Amino acid sequence: MNEAHEEQQIREVIATWMRATAAGDLEKMLNLMTEDVAFLLPGQPPMRGKEAFSESFRGALERVRIAGESNIQEIRVTGDYAHCWNYLTITMTPLRGGKPKRRAGHVLSVFRKDGDGCWRLFRDANLLVTE
Amino acid sequence: MNEAHEEQQIREVIATWMRATAAGDLEKMLNLMTEDVAFLLPGQPPMRGKEAFSESFRGALERVRIAGESNIQEIRVTGDYAHCWNYLTITMTPLRGGKPKRRAGHVLSVFRKDGDGCWRLFRDANLLVTE
Repeated sequence: MNEAHEEQQIREVIATWMRATAAGDLEKMLNLMTEDVAFLLPGQPPMRGKEAFSESFRGALERVRIAGESNIQEIRVTGDYAHCWNYLTITMTPLRGGKPKRRAGHVLSVFRKDGDGCWRLFRDANLLVTE
Repeated sequence: MNEAHEEQQIREVIATWMRATAAGDLEKMLNLMTEDVAFLLPGQPPMRGKEAFSESFRGALERVRIAGESNIQEIRVTGDYAHCWNYLTITMTPLRGGKPKRRAGHVLSVFRKDGDGCWRLFRDANLLVTE
């Protein structure tokens, strides 16, 4: 497989991630991240592993509907790792009414190709701020 | 060269970076980043290229002395790219007196090995917050 093909696979992972987020499809999202995934956020300890993500995402789904837009700036693939520089815009609409909250900013991620040939999110540095 | 050797090279780049920051040695720092480096920060456009970094760093040096501590969490090398998850603690001491400001947090970086065999900072997502 060539790099362009691998890059396309990663683009599809990101597109699937965005659709699954909007649909609140946690199971689908969990299949797009590695077992040892880590999410890095400002002013917080890293969120490590699928369990931590599930808890956080389920909590959010009880309060908001999430819609996102992804604007990929760069993907570089080398072997079984790749990095992606993305620009995300996320709109969180409260389920019980109220003004939607918009967050936007850069995300630097590392993807890993697992033994089953699937690319999954491995490291994620989220620089989004409320607009 | 093996991966452990490459990883050690990157650790040395980071150690040199920290020492050069404390010494205010901009020239040394510029040699540790690629021409097309990009620094990603929350709520700001990306800082692209050596010129933009120089301007920002020179401005800071007029106001503060910077000391930093690096606690590397992970380095993965694949080919000519590597990612590093670091935890940084930065203390900025005003030159004209006043209380030092402390910032700490995670940094996710991508390093690239250039044609001259040197590893340099290529992408940097800085999640530091004021403590």
